Parts: sequence; structure tokens; C-alpha cells
Amino acid sequence: MWHQTNVTERLKIRYPIIQAGMAGATTPELVSEVSNSGGLGTLGAGYMAPDVIRRNIGRIRELTDRPFGINLFVPGTLESDPNKIRESNRLLRPIREKLHLNDPPLLGTSTSDVFSEQLAVVLEARVPVCGFTFGIPDKEVMHQLKKKGILAVGTATTVEEAVLNQRAGMDMVVAQGSEAGGHRGTFAAPFETGMIGTMALIPQVADSVHIPVVAAGGIMDGRGVLAALVLGAGAVQMGTAFLTCDESGANYFHKKRILEAAETDTALTAAFSGKPARGIRNAFIQYMNTYESGLPNYPIQDTLTRDIRREAVRQCHPEWLSMWCGQGVRLSRRFSVSELMKQIVSEIERISL
Amino acid sequence: MWHQTNVTERLKIRYPIIQAGMAGATTPELVSEVSNSGGLGTLGAGYMAPDVIRRNIGRIRELTDRPFGINLFVPGTLESDPNKIRESNRLLRPIREKLHLNDPPLLGTSTSDVFSEQLAVVLEARVPVCGFTFGIPDKEVMHQLKKKGILAVGTATTVEEAVLNQRAGMDMVVAQGSEAGGHRGTFAAPFETGMIGTMALIPQVADSVHIPVVAAGGIMDGRGVLAALVLGAGAVQMGTAFLTCDESGANYFHKKRILEAAETDTALTAAFSGKPARGIRNAFIQYMNTYESGLPNYPIQDTLTRDIRREAVRQCHPEWLSMWCGQGVRLSRRFSVSELMKQIVSEIERISL
Repeated sequence: MWHQTNVTERLKIRYPIIQAGMAGATTPELVSEVSNSGGLGTLGAGYMAPDVIRRNIGRIRELTDRPFGINLFVPGTLESDPNKIRESNRLLRPIREKLHLNDPPLLGTSTSDVFSEQLAVVLEARVPVCGFTFGIPDKEVMHQLKKKGILAVGTATTVEEAVLNQRAGMDMVVAQGSEAGGHRGTFAAPFETGMIGTMALIPQVADSVHIPVVAAGGIMDGRGVLAALVLGAGAVQMGTAFLTCDESGANYFHKKRILEAAETDTALTAAFSGKPARGIRNAFIQYMNTYESGLPNYPIQDTLTRDIRREAVRQCHPEWLSMWCGQGVRLSRRFSVSELMKQIVSEIERISL
Repeated sequence: MWHQTNVTERLKIRYPIIQAGMAGATTPELVSEVSNSGGLGTLGAGYMAPDVIRRNIGRIRELTDRPFGINLFVPGTLESDPNKIRESNRLLRPIREKLHLNDPPLLGTSTSDVFSEQLAVVLEARVPVCGFTFGIPDKEVMHQLKKKGILAVGTATTVEEAVLNQRAGMDMVVAQGSEAGGHRGTFAAPFETGMIGTMALIPQVADSVHIPVVAAGGIMDGRGVLAALVLGAGAVQMGTAFLTCDESGANYFHKKRILEAAETDTALTAAFSGKPARGIRNAFIQYMNTYESGLPNYPIQDTLTRDIRREAVRQCHPEWLSMWCGQGVRLSRRFSVSELMKQIVSEIERISL
């Protein structure tokens, strides 16, 4: 049977479908419904304060008794060049003015402190699966996860990164193709080097590691799921397909633009967060495009644009919003999670070769 | 059966595998062996003089009585900015000097004249299948092909381009994902817009046209072929996988570098020909990288670098050579065509879901 794979076995789920941990868009309802429908829901907790994570996990557990996951951002070195921050604030000023935002935002606390606190919550709550983006946590973290019986899932955009994840003791690895929406997980190379299409990436990664491979990037329906399994993946990770579901926390504009978009309407930008990510090409991306190399790194740039993104939703200005999505947008559908999951399963079962 | 598709039926071939018309690397032996093994061999005739095409077709027909194809480049408007030509020649001078090439090459005749003459040979010889890259030929050409019973195959990198091909009367369309090696076929948008990964592109194109879709980009083995069929393609087009075959006309360095390359070793460049294409990242690509926007368009730049590419092979300087290939390079193998075809078929038949 197509749905019995090395991933469904390890994760104790029915279908080899993982909902991506999309930071900012994953409600407890989305996560629990994916798990209740036989997949693995994932709380995208990269930006969440530890107490918010705790509350979300509690709520998810009220809504499902099935396994679910959480996704965290592995912190890098914090590099804050005052000139770059000044330049970025100068560029953002006209947008701030249109949104009646006068105060430049304050810079937050160190990301590695936040990460430790987030992780403490995950360990304490024994979340069944913990995924990581932007790198590999240190040995001590990996050891603590193992001790608690938490499955660790890494992210790779190249064969080398997949091998590094395996070597670090990850239980499985997400191979993120260039089609994928949201942030690029590339951590061991310049991001352009990690822009490998899913069709090429999956079999090459599958041939190079012995841990299960989860395919991500451009997978939107039953055809994509089955194709990924054929290529050697043990499961898929889907983000955009779940973003337009009723239970998704994506805002109105984000959902609407995805549902209307063509495959050519996305672009990569580092201007929202300081790290390259794929989303709907809008005025913000186009305006910032020529300045990208002079902007501060993640998470500084992310902090500098946070209030803009928040106010842009409130004041109905989708042109200043980050609307992450992958290249499969024409295949997006308005469904509840359980309808989408049923649809995908029936699509797979109708494919005959 | 997986191998009975709308493409195998139209092309009267046994397996849904088309060898890409790789200009400069397709010998009559390669083309005929692919056809003899149950696929569709294609003569990459984009750069060929009409009498060379005629001779090649004759030779292919001596070697096979199965259907085969030819691929031509649709000419665009010839734009020759003398400043850009001067600048390009200035940049190329140090390389020319190292290769002891002193004379700047002369510019050739108009490409649209060549195209008409190439096409006349195709019509006269009634080549069973004629593929087009870089655009769609005019109505008169389409009409002549139909009259002769020649199947016309277009190239698209976006849904819009696939629809344009269908509207123009193409019998099928190759959907070229961003993983693909060699020239991007994009003709109705800036090439960046047409960089859609195969996993995302194929189902979106398949949903938007009723003519058969041929998947290209990152497909190297049985997994890739079956995955493409699952995504909705009626066949695949493979280039890189055939480049390293014994019968391929690719030079020694080109084959060797593909066989040794990792998925991260390719880059896009317009510096060899004036049109963006994917190949092994070497000194030439890196040296020209920052100047790309100031170079002449195709085919001028192609003419300016032709003698360099030719001499670089002769004088064993792979760093100045164009070595086109896709992102699936780690899956490349040294085989004869018939061994490769048998291998792929057996790989497909071993996949069970």
C-alpha cells in the first residue's frame, strides 16, 4: 500500500502527509485537524514566545490525541551592522508613513535565549516530533530530544545538508526543493546553491542518506504526493496546500492571493526577514528588490519589518505583506483540512499506471 | 500499463521517453539508438547547416526505421548593439589570448534565413516529429508541417506558454522545469519568471491544456519517469541522462564533469550564447557573471564565443567550455543507450506502491 512507508511507521500516522510548520499561520485547529485526518500537523513556533507555545500545545492536545509536531528556527550568529539597520529603516520609512507608523521598532532579545526557552517547553511537553529549520541544533539538544523520545526532523536543501542532518542524529530529513514557499532552509551554502528543484533533489538525497526523506516543494495534491513517493521519499511536507484551508491562520489577503495566483506570481525575497523566502510578488518585494544585498540579516530585518506586516493586514494593504507560498499555487483549493486530506487520498487512489 | 500514454500513442513509440534535442551533442548514433530502444531520439539541429541536417537525417534512417525527431530554434528579432559586441569582445580577449585565438569572429547570416532552410529540409525529409525551442513558428510553418503529417512539439516553461503552444496548433508540448540543463525555452516572459520546478510545473500545465504534456527537467532514471507520469505527463524528455551515454556527441570533458558533478555544481548563464542556460559552473561562467546584463543577445553572443568553445575542447581547457546539464547530475551513468533504456524500464517496473 502506498501509505505504508518508513515515515508513517516512525511517526505512527496513517498517511505520509506532513503539514509544514509555517510560522505565523498554524493554529491549534489546523495542526490538530491534520493529525485527526491521518497526517501530521505541525505547530510553526519559530516566532512564538515560550508561554504561547505552551498554550498552543495544550490546546492541540485538547483537540487531538494523535501525534503532532512543532517546528523551531535554529539560531545563527547575531550580526547587527548599525549602517545596515539605518539603511533598512530609511528604505522602510515611506511605507511606515503610509501606515501611520512613526516609531522604529526596538530590537528584541537574543534569538539563542529564545530558542533555549522554546526548546525547554518542547521537552517538558514531550511533543512527539520536533522539526528544525535554518540549521542543526547542537549535540546537547539532540541528546535531550532522544532522551525524551522526541523524533527530530531536520531540513536540507542539498545532498550535503541532508548528510549533515543524518550525521547529527536526525531521525528523518525534509528535502526542500526550490518550488517551496516560505523560507529557504539552506544553511551550509549560499542560498542560490541550494535552489534545486524537487524532482532532481529527492532521488539524489534518497540515494545519499539512510534516514527517511520527506519531500517538500511544489506538492499540492494526490499527484504530487504519489510522485514524491515514487522519487524515493517516505512522505511529503505540504505548506501552501494547507494555507488556504479554513483552519489555517493565514490572513484573508494571503489566502485570497494564493487562490488567485499563477505559478509565475511568486518571487524570492530576503527583504521581509533577512533570509530568502518565496512568496507572492507584491509592491514590497519589488520596491526592496534592488537593495537586498545591503539589508541586515535575519532576525534583525525581520524585527524591523514586523510592525509593518502587522499593520498592513489591519489596514488592508496586502502590497506590504509577506504572503509566503510555493510555486504550485494554481492547485490551491478552499477546503476544510479533513476535506483536503480526503480529496488527496482519493486522488492518489484514482491514479493508475 | 505505465508505458501506454497519449504520447506513446501519438508518436508510435514503445516507452514514453524522448531524448532531448541537445544541439551540439546528438549524433545519428545517439538518435537512432534511442529510437531503436523504444524511445524517441531527437536530432538537435538548432546550430546545424541545412546540408548537415540532410546528411544526419540520411544517416539516422540508415540506422533505424523507427520514428525520430528533430529540434530547431525559432529565430527572434536580431538585435546587434555595436557597443555590446565591443564590450563582449573586450571581455573575451584574455581567454582568446590564452587559446591563441587572435581574430574576432565574423558575424553569421540572419538566423531567420537559416531557420527557413532548416525547415525546408525537415519538410522535404518528412521527419516524423519536429520540436521547437525559443518560441512558436508562424502559422504558415505550422500549416506546412500539418500538411506533411509531421507532428509539431513546442516548448513551454510556464502555463501561459503551454497555452500559447496549444493555441498555435502544436500536437504536444514539452514543459521544461527549472531543473533542466541547457537553454531555457522561455519566450513569453523574462526568464526568471519561467523558473518553475518540474514538480510544480507539470500538474499545473497538465490542468491547463488538452494536448499531451512532456515533462522535462531533473528526470534521470525510472523514478523520475514514473513520477512525471504520475504528475500528469504523457512522457518525459531527458537530456543529461543521455549526454553521458557512449553514443552521445558530448566531448570528453563534458561527460567527465557531469559524471563527477554534484547537484549544486550547475549554474545559469547567458554568457555563452546570449540566452540563459544551465551548465556546470566553471571559470568562464564565474568570470562573465557580473557582466551578463551588458552582453549581446542570442545569437550574437553565441557567435562571439563559438571559436573559444571549439578551441577550448581541442586545447583541453574545460574551464572555457559550455558543459550543459541539469540538476539531476548525481544520477548520471555511463551506459550505452540501449543499456540505459533497459535500466530505466526495469527501475520503473521494480517500483511498487
